[in-house]
Parts: sequence; C-alpha cells; structure tokens
Amino acid sequence: MSSIYGDKIKVAIFGESHSEAIGVTIDGLPAGISIDMEELQVFMERRAPGRSKYATPRKEADRPEFLCGIRDGMTCGTPVTAMIRNENTRSADYDDMKDTPRPGHADYAAHVKYGDANDYRGGGHFSGRLTAPLCIAGGIFKQILAKEGITIDARILEIGGNSNDPFAAVDEAMKDGDSVGGIIECVITGLPAGIGEPMFDGLENVLAKAVFGIPAVKGIEFGRGFDAARIRGSENNDEFYYDDHKVRTRTNNHGGILGGISSGMPVVFRVAVKPTPSIAIEQSSISYSREENVKLKVGGRHDPCIVPRAVPCVEAAAAMALYDMIR
Amino acid sequence: MSSIYGDKIKVAIFGESHSEAIGVTIDGLPAGISIDMEELQVFMERRAPGRSKYATPRKEADRPEFLCGIRDGMTCGTPVTAMIRNENTRSADYDDMKDTPRPGHADYAAHVKYGDANDYRGGGHFSGRLTAPLCIAGGIFKQILAKEGITIDARILEIGGNSNDPFAAVDEAMKDGDSVGGIIECVITGLPAGIGEPMFDGLENVLAKAVFGIPAVKGIEFGRGFDAARIRGSENNDEFYYDDHKVRTRTNNHGGILGGISSGMPVVFRVAVKPTPSIAIEQSSISYSREENVKLKVGGRHDPCIVPRAVPCVEAAAAMALYDMIR
Amino acid sequence: MSSIYGDKIKVAIFGESHSEAIGVTIDGLPAGISIDMEELQVFMERRAPGRSKYATPRKEADRPEFLCGIRDGMTCGTPVTAMIRNENTRSADYDDMKDTPRPGHADYAAHVKYGDANDYRGGGHFSGRLTAPLCIAGGIFKQILAKEGITIDARILEIGGNSNDPFAAVDEAMKDGDSVGGIIECVITGLPAGIGEPMFDGLENVLAKAVFGIPAVKGIEFGRGFDAARIRGSENNDEFYYDDHKVRTRTNNHGGILGGISSGMPVVFRVAVKPTPSIAIEQSSISYSREENVKLKVGGRHDPCIVPRAVPCVEAAAAMALYDMIR
Amino acid sequence: MSSIYGDKIKVAIFGESHSEAIGVTIDGLPAGISIDMEELQVFMERRAPGRSKYATPRKEADRPEFLCGIRDGMTCGTPVTAMIRNENTRSADYDDMKDTPRPGHADYAAHVKYGDANDYRGGGHFSGRLTAPLCIAGGIFKQILAKEGITIDARILEIGGNSNDPFAAVDEAMKDGDSVGGIIECVITGLPAGIGEPMFDGLENVLAKAVFGIPAVKGIEFGRGFDAARIRGSENNDEFYYDDHKVRTRTNNHGGILGGISSGMPVVFRVAVKPTPSIAIEQSSISYSREENVKLKVGGRHDPCIVPRAVPCVEAAAAMALYDMIR
Repeated sequence: MSSIYGDKIKVAIFGESHSEAIGVTIDGLPAGISIDMEELQVFMERRAPGRSKYATPRKEADRPEFLCGIRDGMTCGTPVTAMIRNENTRSADYDDMKDTPRPGHADYAAHVKYGDANDYRGGGHFSGRLTAPLCIAGGIFKQILAKEGITIDARILEIGGNSNDPFAAVDEAMKDGDSVGGIIECVITGLPAGIGEPMFDGLENVLAKAVFGIPAVKGIEFGRGFDAARIRGSENNDEFYYDDHKVRTRTNNHGGILGGISSGMPVVFRVAVKPTPSIAIEQSSISYSREENVKLKVGGRHDPCIVPRAVPCVEAAAAMALYDMIR
Repeated sequence: MSSIYGDKIKVAIFGESHSEAIGVTIDGLPAGISIDMEELQVFMERRAPGRSKYATPRKEADRPEFLCGIRDGMTCGTPVTAMIRNENTRSADYDDMKDTPRPGHADYAAHVKYGDANDYRGGGHFSGRLTAPLCIAGGIFKQILAKEGITIDARILEIGGNSNDPFAAVDEAMKDGDSVGGIIECVITGLPAGIGEPMFDGLENVLAKAVFGIPAVKGIEFGRGFDAARIRGSENNDEFYYDDHKVRTRTNNHGGILGGISSGMPVVFRVAVKPTPSIAIEQSSISYSREENVKLKVGGRHDPCIVPRAVPCVEAAAAMALYDMIR
Repeated sequence: MSSIYGDKIKVAIFGESHSEAIGVTIDGLPAGISIDMEELQVFMERRAPGRSKYATPRKEADRPEFLCGIRDGMTCGTPVTAMIRNENTRSADYDDMKDTPRPGHADYAAHVKYGDANDYRGGGHFSGRLTAPLCIAGGIFKQILAKEGITIDARILEIGGNSNDPFAAVDEAMKDGDSVGGIIECVITGLPAGIGEPMFDGLENVLAKAVFGIPAVKGIEFGRGFDAARIRGSENNDEFYYDDHKVRTRTNNHGGILGGISSGMPVVFRVAVKPTPSIAIEQSSISYSREENVKLKVGGRHDPCIVPRAVPCVEAAAAMALYDMIR
Repeated sequence: MSSIYGDKIKVAIFGESHSEAIGVTIDGLPAGISIDMEELQVFMERRAPGRSKYATPRKEADRPEFLCGIRDGMTCGTPVTAMIRNENTRSADYDDMKDTPRPGHADYAAHVKYGDANDYRGGGHFSGRLTAPLCIAGGIFKQILAKEGITIDARILEIGGNSNDPFAAVDEAMKDGDSVGGIIECVITGLPAGIGEPMFDGLENVLAKAVFGIPAVKGIEFGRGFDAARIRGSENNDEFYYDDHKVRTRTNNHGGILGGISSGMPVVFRVAVKPTPSIAIEQSSISYSREENVKLKVGGRHDPCIVPRAVPCVEAAAAMALYDMIR
C-alpha cells in the first residue's frame, strides 16, 4: 500500500522533502544483472533540479548512495536500497505552510490525513522530490528492459497548450510569476504481443496506477484516447495485416493495447501534467489556527513548469510498471 | 493478479462469455451488513443487455445466484460468491473468430497470450459480459458506501462527440452498421477529506486501475484533467476558504483530489469509452491458419454503442476502488 | 486476505458448511495445461467423507462442477472456478451451537468475530468441509507439478501417539465416543535446488502459511524440527558431497531447506493434527443468551479422527504453496 | 515477496552482512505515534552481538539511524526507514565460503539461486545480522501494541534439551568447539477475542510465516502443539466457562487460537531453533571449482548458541505479524 509499487517486484519509496534522506528499496531484481551507474546518473540528471532557468535552483546532487544489493556493479538478487541525503533544505521557507495550505498542493489533504504529525516542510512525502527515488528504480528498470529490446521514450507534446514552442509558454508564465502545465507523450517499442493480464492487471491499468504516482499528473489516455470517444468504430478499429509474416495494424488508435494486452504495436500514451501549484502570485487560502480566510504568497524556490523534469519520471514509472508485468 | 482487484478486500471475477457461468467472489466484507437484493437487481439491470434498441438483444436475465457468504440478506463476514449461468449463448456466431481476429477487439492479443487454448468464443474472458460480475460487486459496495453518506453517480457526457443529443449519434451510427463511443463523467460526493494514500495508492491511481478494468475504456482524467495542462497555475489552483467552519475550495479543478488524497470536495473524473469494435461493416483482418490478409464482417448481435451500459460499470468500478480504500 | 492464498497465483476459497455451495477460484494458471479429471476425482475422494467407518457418514459426492477457465479438459489461461453444491446438510443438528460454542471448535471465536451474522451451522466457513475446494486446487497443482517431476506424498506417521497401529487408536477412541489426533509427514521430491525466497517467503514460511489453513493443524516442523533443538551443530549439520557430479548431503536434518531455499534434497515436514473437537462425551460450555455455564453433548455426525482425511489436504496445501513459489 | 512482510502494513528489510548498510522500511504506520527511542535501543541490545561470552564478539553498535518518517520522535504517517551501517566486518574471514559451502548454512542454496553474483560474505542477505532490522520494526510494533494492552514475551524454554540449566549446555558445546540449539516459548497477552482471519490468514498462519523469517527456526507449534496429536479430544478440548461475565477456558491447549482466530486466552507458541551451523569442528563439504569433496573448518567469530539472541527476534516477528493483523 501507499508508497510501495508492484506485484512481482516491490518498489518501496521512502523519505520526505526535509527528512534526513529519501530513497528506494527494490525487492525482486534477479541476480547477476550489471547496472551501468554512469548511465543511471545521466538519467537521474534529466530529473534533477537546478539545471536550467526553468527549474528550481535547489541544487541537490541527486547522486544515490547504494546501501546494498549491488556489488561490483552487479545485482546480488537481494533487495537493492539506494538513498539520497537531503541537503540544501531551507525549512524556514515553509514556515507559513504549517498553518496555511497552498492552493493546488497536497498540504490541506495531508493536514487532514496526518494531523499535527504531518511533515509539512516542503510538501513532506508529497514533494516532487520523491520522484528522485522513483527515477533511481525506473532508471534501473529501463536499463534492464533495454537489454531485452524494449525502449521507453517520453517527450513533451505541449506546454500551456503550445505545441510549437512549448518553452515560450514557460517564459511567459515565468515573467508573470505564474506557472504552466503540459502534456507528455510516452512511446514504448519492442514490447512483444501478449503481455498484460485481463481486467485489473492490463497494461492500461498498471501503467495508469504507476504514472499517477507522479505528483501533478491529472489524466492519462492510451492510443487515440479521449479522441477515440468522438469517432466511429469503422474509423477507430485498427485493421490487421501480415507484414512479412508479422502481424501488424495499419493504424495504431489502440495504442498497442487491446483488452489490456500488448498487440505488438508500439504502446503509446499521453499524460496531462497540471501547472505547478506554487506560484509567486498572491492567492486566497485559510489559517487553520485562526479558522479564517487569509492571503498567501508562496515564497521559496519553485519551478514555473515541472513538465520537462516530469518527462524522465514518466519513463521511470512506465519502466517500473512494465518490468513488474513481464518479470 | 489479473482478474482480482483489491488490497484490503479482494474481488475475484471469473468466467468467459460462453463458459458455464460467470461470477465473482468478494473476500473482506464485514459481517452483519444487510444487502438490498431488489436494489442490487435494479442496478444490475442498468447494465443488462436487451433492454433498449441500442443494446444487443442477447437476453440474459443477469440475475445472480448467491452461493455463500450471505444468509437472510445479511453478510456473514465470509467470502461472498455470486454467479450467473450463461444461457442464450450462440457460439456458432463466433466460429470465424477462431481464425480471424476482429479489429479493435482483444481477439488477437488473447490469441498470442493463450495460444490454442484461448476461449475465443464471444471474446472469452475479455467479453464485456464480464462487467456483470463487476456490477454485482460494485452494486454491493455502492449500497454500503451509501449508508456512510457516499454517493457515486455517473452519467453520459457525450456520445460520438455529441453532448446535446447523444443518442442521435447512436442512431446515425446504427443506421450505417457502424458504432460510436463516448465520454462518461462520474461524481462522488460525501467522501470525507483525508482519504487516499500517497504515491501509488492515491485515489487517482486506484480509481484508474479499477476503471481501466472495464473493456473499451481508453482514457481517464480527474478534475479539469487534460484541460488543466493548458491553463496557468493561477487559474488552475483552487483557493481554499472557510464555509461555516468547513474548508472548501471555490472551484474544483482538482476534482476533489490533492496529492492523491481527498480534499472533501466532490471527486470528479471522466472516462473515454471507445466505439464498440464489433461493426457490421466489412473490415480487413488476417487468417492465422493461411497466414494471409482476409476480409471480415462481424456477424452476431452487438451494441452500436456500449456507453449507456458502461455507465453503471463506471459506478461499480469506482465503488469497488473506494470501498477498498476506506475499508 | 483471509480465504485467498498466493502471491503469483491466487486461490480464493468460498463457502460455508451449509451455504448453497462451496468452491474455489484459481487465478493465474497458464493456458493449455490439460487436467486429468479422473485423477482429480480420485484425489478428491481420498478426502471425501463417508468412505470408511472412521469418517462422518455425510455423503457428499464432492464432485466439483467447473464453471469456467477449463474447456475440453484444458486450461484457458483465465480464472478457473469450480464449485460443489452442499447437499445432505442437516442444519437442525447444529441448533444448539447457535447459543453454545463447542469446546475446541472455532464456534466461540467466530461468534465474537462475526456477531449475530455468524453462520454457525456446521462451523460455517471454518468447517473442515472447506478443505474440499482446497483439494480441488491442490489436486490440480499436484498434477502440474508432477509433470515437472515434483511429487508430493503425505502419510500418517502416528495417531494418538501410536505409530505401529494407528487405526487401533482410532477404534479405541471411537468406542469411548472420544476422538484422537495424529502426525502427518509430507515428502516432496524432485524440487530443484535454489527454489524459495529469503526471509519471509522461504519455503518454510509459505508451506507453514498454507498448511495452517487446514483446520486442526497446531504445529509444523521441517527436517529434524523440534528434535534439532536438542542436538549439537556437529550432529545436525548435513555434510555436502558430490555424488556423480550432483551435490547432495549425507543426512537430511535440514529437510531439504537451507535459508528458506531448497537444497535439492527431499523437502520433509511433519504436521501435528489435534483430535477432532466434536465428541459424543458431555463437556462444559456456556450459554451466550443466559450467560451461564451449561453442559453440552455434541450430536450429529463426526469423524472420530480426521487425520486420514487430512493427508490429501496436506498434499494439497503443499502443492498450492510450491506451485505459487515456482510459478 | 521475499524480504517484504505484511498485508496492511509492509515491512521491507534490506542489506547483506557485508554491504554498506542494513535496514528496514515500514510502510503503513499511522501518524502521530510517539516512539520511545531509548526503549527501542534497549530492545535492540537484547539481540545485539558482543554482549556475553556466548555471543560473537563482532561489536556492531546496532544503533539505527532513522532516515525519514519520524520527526521529533513522532511518526509522520509516511514510510519510516532506519538503517545501520555495517562496520567491523572482516570479509577475509569468509574467503573460503566463496568456493565451499558451510554445512547447515544457506551458502549452497544461495549459490545455486544467485550464481556468481551471490554475496557469500558472511552469509549475505541470509545472515543472522538481518534480524537487526527485523528488531527495529518489531520493537516499534511492540511499543504500539503495548499501548493497546497487548504484551509479547518470549523466553528460553530449553537449550540442547536442557531446561533446568540451559546455559550449561552452551558452555559444554562451546568447550568442544560445537554449537547447540533450543526452544523458545512466546506468550501474547491482552489480545482480544475475535482477531484473525479464516483459512490462510489465521493467527497461526501469519505468526508462522513471520517467525520462519528468523534464520535457524525449524519448527513452530501452538498451544499444546505436537503433544495435542497424542492425546484425546476429551483431554485436548478446552472447556468454556464464565468468569465474572468474561468467557474463558479452563485449560489453554488451544494456545489462545481457535479456527485461526483469537479466543481471548493468552496466545502461546513454541519455536524450535537449530544449533548454529558455524562450528570450529572440521566438517566435510565440497569445492565448487574443483568439483570434489573437501574438509572445512569454519573460522571467524560465531555464537555457540544463538537462542538467547533469537528471543527478542521471536518477539519482533510476532509483534510484526500481530500488528499487521489488527491494523
């Protein structure tokens, strides 16, 4: 439950934005798999903050320390745990949040759920920072899947409704102290036909379950998705044909998934990412202690748009879900 | 895995379209809950076929027989199993499918997955008929949730892109031997704030996992969903305020869910349902045995639009996911 | 949880002693496995009542009806559900139990757990009768394991402390209207080395979890078991040697399991079965309604010793646990 | 699976004897529970090595560092992770093991399971050292259960068959360079009646599953256990009576568990611990590389008897199983 993902493997994510450390335990990796730590670090850095003018300048190294389960770059077959120490935390930035929830954030929901014990600092366990351990796990799964010929690539489709020049939308929002969301598309190739389980463990079910683990994701659609609801069967159905003894479909409205099971065509899905809730514009909120409405202006360091950093997270979540499925 | 849903409860769905029976076992219901069998039957009939000109005329009674776990209309606290005998099956309708997969159906994926042992008749375990046991379980959960003040109501938002007169779109498609999909919106009220777990067991994760268990669902979005990806944070953030000592938000773009946890506002999500794949129009497909491309015209009885029958299924899936969460 | 077993497969047992039916759903069997129904029936009959003078004369046919998942004797890859109708039930035999728990039975614990809704008739879901669906599942797993060269054989080691002539002990107890328990030994051969997971999913953990699912089991020990606690390391350690390029141990005090993982030697465990609680001798108990101590003499039909019928159940539980492990 | 325990909570144990660190993540603790760190440390030290002449002199501090989930001594409601750095490891002690498995150890089974990637040093993930993180988790659960009036106390019943002067048996074995096992009894008081689930999630099932997670445990029995198999029903059945409006039984042969469910009487079980496999006496084993039989004398530091250190581990495992059950 909660911060553990998986059926055949288990990925247990731990940590809060301002705790001693964040990290992940992966239980179920087979023995003898070599992990390319350089490649993993490159993957991690796609998510890391402080690398562009759009990202929060909090400069964690985001360099995981592996505590166990890997020896000489090779999995032992036992649980792999990696952690990242939390440094460069400025808890004072979050003093206001103790009494006043930020609109659009998990603050209020967490306040109700955990009461006074809630670690409100930096969003606690709900912080986007928790996608770092997700990327450790996902980066490892991506490497293993790649060895089996399965590739997972996500990219920005649009930001703030702008697909031609997405970063222009970020620049404009930034100027206004505002934020902006976007849509990410993920394509999985090399997945053989026949993968997935019926009903509740189909590819759509498990990919959705994993991808909604990324904060700010508010929608997911497969293949033609919501648009399929607006066309006819004769247009949406993808006709089969033989292409050099291989079964293919002429179109891919089904996004590589039929009945929850892979068809052998590329798996395609899109993810809606909402605008970063933390903005420099004054908003209305409440004071718990005084039980009254107040004004709030979120200080601290925040991304005007987390879509670019969410791209590797989508790949990580997809890799985790897929690896669990085919294990 | 596969056809079992749940963490704290387990809902195990069994059966194929043309097997002896289909049914469901619910493990984890507490003892002493009275189930209104009349009300359950009314709920089941919203999904049942043969009730309108738009639905397949296959006339199953869809009247579950309870085998155990309920005595004198009261749960015993032990597993509840209900089944529906499959009658009125015309397997001959499906002889073609043995060698030729229907475009848009799970036929091909199931053929690869299960090989010669696949029960292709009527789509086997992938048949929409399997939503009947889902509705048995979901109908029971709906009743229990209602007693706790939680209501779940889904409705058709649009069919074939038509939101003003959705059934006109069905009529037109029907005339052409074609089919059409649509969008269903589901609203959950009465859910207190603080329900849901962080990361992978948030409300979005589990509702998505459950709802994708309904065949033909290709997308899900919460609150403002994909549209939120196109607006700014200042517009998307829902401001908090006190309303007679109760915390509310002035807008509900977050769809009642923040950080995966309920905010106390109504939970709102929308589901994309693709057009029924079975159409009377000739399509291209393949012959496995001859390994060549062939033409296929799907005979038998089929709904030109399954959206109306999917509405109670969405409620059932949501009820199941919610009940498991708050149990 | 509760009546569902398994990690990679799921075995969901349902029913009460006096409900409409009892049965089982097995989720996770691969497609294309042929099940020998004759052989399964022979296995079922080793457990069935009414076959000897020691067993209760309640004569259920115990002939499962398969509802789905098997077609032409072959698994479809989808959930397999089988049920047995409850017939020949004499609920009146159990009227006393509504108010007075039988010593040694689950009656009182179930009364507290389920309250007034408890189906007390015949022990409800706690009845030994629920081992029939366990044997359906276990019998199927045994067949599949046998095809992989893994055999599971249990036998009576002693009854009432008598290992030379166990049935003499039953005869004597029977004469006195009393009952008697015993010890069953189970040997698994053909299991390759390296099967099992560390810590909580070792072979000992999962075999114990499954075997304690059989009512009346009160202990389990592996290899030399409790006796190993009384000897020295030099005596208990099993020395390795090469036997024609194969690693073996000269003794098998470890019962084929080291660190929870199979060593390649036969897996050996013993199970303690308590005496049947239902006896014809007057015992002290209580009346819930009058809140006073009363005398109780259990009427109805009961086995003076369930050890013989428990033997196939131990095999079934072990087969289920093993199959789940190696799947 | 493998090193993760739990249904409602999850306890994920990680680390190898000679990895950077060992530790545990506990997912599912509610928010706002204060943990007495002093008391936890006292509990940890009952298990820690180097405290008596019978225990290995390897002197880990066994002082866990909490990485997250606890703030100001109070649980946050999010995953709690604690780790212990591995220091004072002398890997050279284990060079022999790379090629030669120690009789009675998991070495050979792990070698087959994990192949060349196996971390053989000090038994890797199979080391008794992994009971330290189990005790971190168990110690926390014990504290929470104690607040609810549930106490868990284990004690040595006998060592080497000697119940009068157990430590004399250790002394004698030690003199001979040999080792010795024993039997531990655990008593749980304060558990209300009605706790446990039928069939596979009864108290016996889950306690057994947890307790077999302790290396060297080879048997478990509840109440009168194996001895119950040798007496009659009239003797084994525990008669109910009212004691000041409370239901009790006059004897406790059932060990507080009927049908897998607590009866309100103390839960009593006994655990068989085999002799420590590492002994200073020469034994026969094999060389993998030369594929021949060799002689082995285990060097390094080893306990002549791990029974005393296993006592808190039994309490920890029981606390974990119970807490998961009643959560």
